[in-house]
Amino acid sequence: MSKVFLYDTTLRDGTQREGISYSLDDKIKIARKLDEFGIDYIEGGWPGSNPKDVDFFRKAASLNLKHAKITAFGSTRRKNADVAGDPNIKALLDANTPVVTLVGKSWDLHVIDVLETTMEENLAMIGESVAYCRQQGKEVVYDAEHFFDGYKANPEYAVATVKTAAINGANSVVLCDTNGGSLPWEIEEIVRDVKGQLGNTAVGIHTHDDGGMGNANTLAAVRAGANQVQGTINGYGERVANANLCIVIPDLQLKMGRDCVPPEKLRDLTDLSRYVAEVANLTHDSHYPFVGASAFAHKGGIHVAAMLKNPLSYQHIDPTLVGNQQRSVVSELSGRGNIVDKAVQFGLDTESLDLRRVLDQIKTLENKGFTYEGAEASVELMLRRTHPAYVPPFELIDFMVVVQQRRKRGMLAEATVKVRVGPKILHTAAEGNGPVNALDGALRAALVDVYPRLANVKLVDYKVRIIDSDNATAATTRVLIDTQLGANRWSTIGASANIIEASWLALADSMEYALLQ
Amino acid sequence: MSKVFLYDTTLRDGTQREGISYSLDDKIKIARKLDEFGIDYIEGGWPGSNPKDVDFFRKAASLNLKHAKITAFGSTRRKNADVAGDPNIKALLDANTPVVTLVGKSWDLHVIDVLETTMEENLAMIGESVAYCRQQGKEVVYDAEHFFDGYKANPEYAVATVKTAAINGANSVVLCDTNGGSLPWEIEEIVRDVKGQLGNTAVGIHTHDDGGMGNANTLAAVRAGANQVQGTINGYGERVANANLCIVIPDLQLKMGRDCVPPEKLRDLTDLSRYVAEVANLTHDSHYPFVGASAFAHKGGIHVAAMLKNPLSYQHIDPTLVGNQQRSVVSELSGRGNIVDKAVQFGLDTESLDLRRVLDQIKTLENKGFTYEGAEASVELMLRRTHPAYVPPFELIDFMVVVQQRRKRGMLAEATVKVRVGPKILHTAAEGNGPVNALDGALRAALVDVYPRLANVKLVDYKVRIIDSDNATAATTRVLIDTQLGANRWSTIGASANIIEASWLALADSMEYALLQ
Repeated sequence: MSKVFLYDTTLRDGTQREGISYSLDDKIKIARKLDEFGIDYIEGGWPGSNPKDVDFFRKAASLNLKHAKITAFGSTRRKNADVAGDPNIKALLDANTPVVTLVGKSWDLHVIDVLETTMEENLAMIGESVAYCRQQGKEVVYDAEHFFDGYKANPEYAVATVKTAAINGANSVVLCDTNGGSLPWEIEEIVRDVKGQLGNTAVGIHTHDDGGMGNANTLAAVRAGANQVQGTINGYGERVANANLCIVIPDLQLKMGRDCVPPEKLRDLTDLSRYVAEVANLTHDSHYPFVGASAFAHKGGIHVAAMLKNPLSYQHIDPTLVGNQQRSVVSELSGRGNIVDKAVQFGLDTESLDLRRVLDQIKTLENKGFTYEGAEASVELMLRRTHPAYVPPFELIDFMVVVQQRRKRGMLAEATVKVRVGPKILHTAAEGNGPVNALDGALRAALVDVYPRLANVKLVDYKVRIIDSDNATAATTRVLIDTQLGANRWSTIGASANIIEASWLALADSMEYALLQ
Repeated sequence: MSKVFLYDTTLRDGTQREGISYSLDDKIKIARKLDEFGIDYIEGGWPGSNPKDVDFFRKAASLNLKHAKITAFGSTRRKNADVAGDPNIKALLDANTPVVTLVGKSWDLHVIDVLETTMEENLAMIGESVAYCRQQGKEVVYDAEHFFDGYKANPEYAVATVKTAAINGANSVVLCDTNGGSLPWEIEEIVRDVKGQLGNTAVGIHTHDDGGMGNANTLAAVRAGANQVQGTINGYGERVANANLCIVIPDLQLKMGRDCVPPEKLRDLTDLSRYVAEVANLTHDSHYPFVGASAFAHKGGIHVAAMLKNPLSYQHIDPTLVGNQQRSVVSELSGRGNIVDKAVQFGLDTESLDLRRVLDQIKTLENKGFTYEGAEASVELMLRRTHPAYVPPFELIDFMVVVQQRRKRGMLAEATVKVRVGPKILHTAAEGNGPVNALDGALRAALVDVYPRLANVKLVDYKVRIIDSDNATAATTRVLIDTQLGANRWSTIGASANIIEASWLALADSMEYALLQ
């Protein structure tokens, strides 16, 4: 099984997708996860174009990645300029990464119409930029933008651009179908020709999905000799999509017998795909190949019956190979088994709990908009509360939240909370920079004297999803809160048509859970 | 340009998608739309499996389609039974369609493990069922289920099944990649072999997208000689997807030079795709190739600048060929070109506006957590407000929101709003099922007497995103509101650490925009 190198551009090309905007912290989280999964190259951004990307590279130096190399992306030097003085090249080197990725033009239309320079000058821009970055000790990936369109228009010139990069020391040359309009057999034929002309220089492939062929084009290039694939998690990318690594990796590995990541890492693929969707704050598409929640879900009665006779009859691979699972849509039989599983996992004694009641409660609440997949602390509380000896550490009596906009004073958010702890009634108030922050303050103020450990509890994440969003401001709101105490971290959930109530429910569960630790 | 016949199974295989359930009326609407577009065969359902499908065929007879033939789907006769007395075959003929589609087994694993019969009996089931339906005057499409898996396991037997169908008079033989796991070059090689062995019988292709190759596999089969493609609108189908006709048709026609529908019909493709999503009650995926709202949307400043020089530079086809349009997305990655483009698109006079100020404002606000990509109405307002003669239709003075949880009364949300309209001060209050709903009510109550059209304005979507979510309840919240008035729909945005303020900003923009219409 010969190795195919995985080059991820989720953090650069992926941010071109309409609707994606990562914080610096988001980018760091994704980079860590990609490294753990076994990605070989992580393209972190374009330091010349964007101050946030400069910060990323500063922070990335201290990430201590186990496997991946970080690469910074930028274009070849400007026309008619000195490479050593070029600000883009300088920004690229200043990113202080082991690898730089230089993008240059291959298509005569772009050289003439967009760069507005000569064919010769473009070759000089490529050659000098590659050579200079190599002299500075960098591994250089050369991205040949619009290579396939260029090759179709003027094959000699397109090949000359990548030969220039190779001769000047590029470690690999990546052929890009930037506009995403090529077909698989075109890609295969062109990559085979170029591979033959480039000799020992490694060839990579970078595709887009504008014609719906992005993933097939990537596989076709590997068939023709490419050994580096560029893509993004979930295909997130400009316009339609980039090549989707969550499709390309399992196809290469399970169907084409190529080596990408160890088989035990491949089982993390579904988790990786969902994690990146979560950080991007995008709904995970349940119809993604391999990793979607519906990818191995069988609806037709005949299919379900056949699957019971032979699981191969209606699925192309064993879903556990990519960390996914088979489901049948018609039956909801797995319910009780899951709950027992959870209770055991939490170390609870299943004998003394009312599992049936919890299962019914979950079904009722999921109907109302709750979702317990990401909120295990709320599930644990629900289980514990069915124990005959359970005493809640506090009980809500009332709360009130006021938000005001006043000309002189600006925005004000204030909350009052009244709770009972044993025989005591505690009634406190707090301001905050928003209604939920004020509520959090008031609740802790009430409880902290009785439970001093709450002072160290930190709310670390707060997520809001609108569920039946077609109901606009009357829609159901789902709030997830992540909380931390020392090394422990847990998630709780609330849902309601009233966002304040939904937040309160998640907040109260979170504090109650903290007091069980 | 040789013709490729379009066979749509949105109403049969498409209904196997998790989450889809059409009413009879939905199915009729979709059938009419498919006919208008120029689909050749419309598979209406499986009359043997489903009473709703029986009703569909009853009603379809009076549809007076202009172009398409309706076909009814069903399996070959049961094992060891008389074809003329078989209830499935009878239901199929009773559907009273000009065409019937018979599905039979090609894979020995399915014959033995699932049908639990002999290889010979399966051939008899195919041959007799095809011959009998032909004798009853039907055009017969023979669907060879799992053909490619069967061919890989036992090529002689798989080919024998389709030869049996052809010899018994099938008008076309459709090779199905039922489990969706094949790769394009496998499909191409196998179709070429079978096509050679079948002589004059037409060959079709039916693929699924489980390996992310469904559309590429369809094109590969056409390259190898298939002249009928089966698929669904938007790829809706069991598990992951069927072949997506909204990808396959433009690829065949625009890239492979095959004849599917007249060019003026191809311009209805985007509309068809959105129409079916609407009827299916699914969000239209903005990242669909060809027909998605983002398919020709350019975000990077460099891309937008290049597009102004040459529209071919970053798009693979002219979007109007499929009824879509080019857009430039405004974001922190934008340059002046994006803003000019937007102003022109909104029909504004760029001379009298301060474009630089708007660009700076966007960059500042995006740093604070706003994102203008999905909020074009807010961008348009920002542009208009820089016009020296612009007078805002109302101005906020104060607002207040109270949310209370009281033991006796449950949750209560109430808002008061004070606004100025010209010389008048309006001060109103409203209750709601949440704070934003109450605010919406109070604002409209204040404005509706002066601006009666606001009574018809409908908030249709409300989305909340937490941006720097690690700040937990103190994090920045971004609110997007979609609003509708008649056929117009627009999106506005607000962002703040206070979710109520963020919602107010989006709400106020939304109402102001409504008053400009």
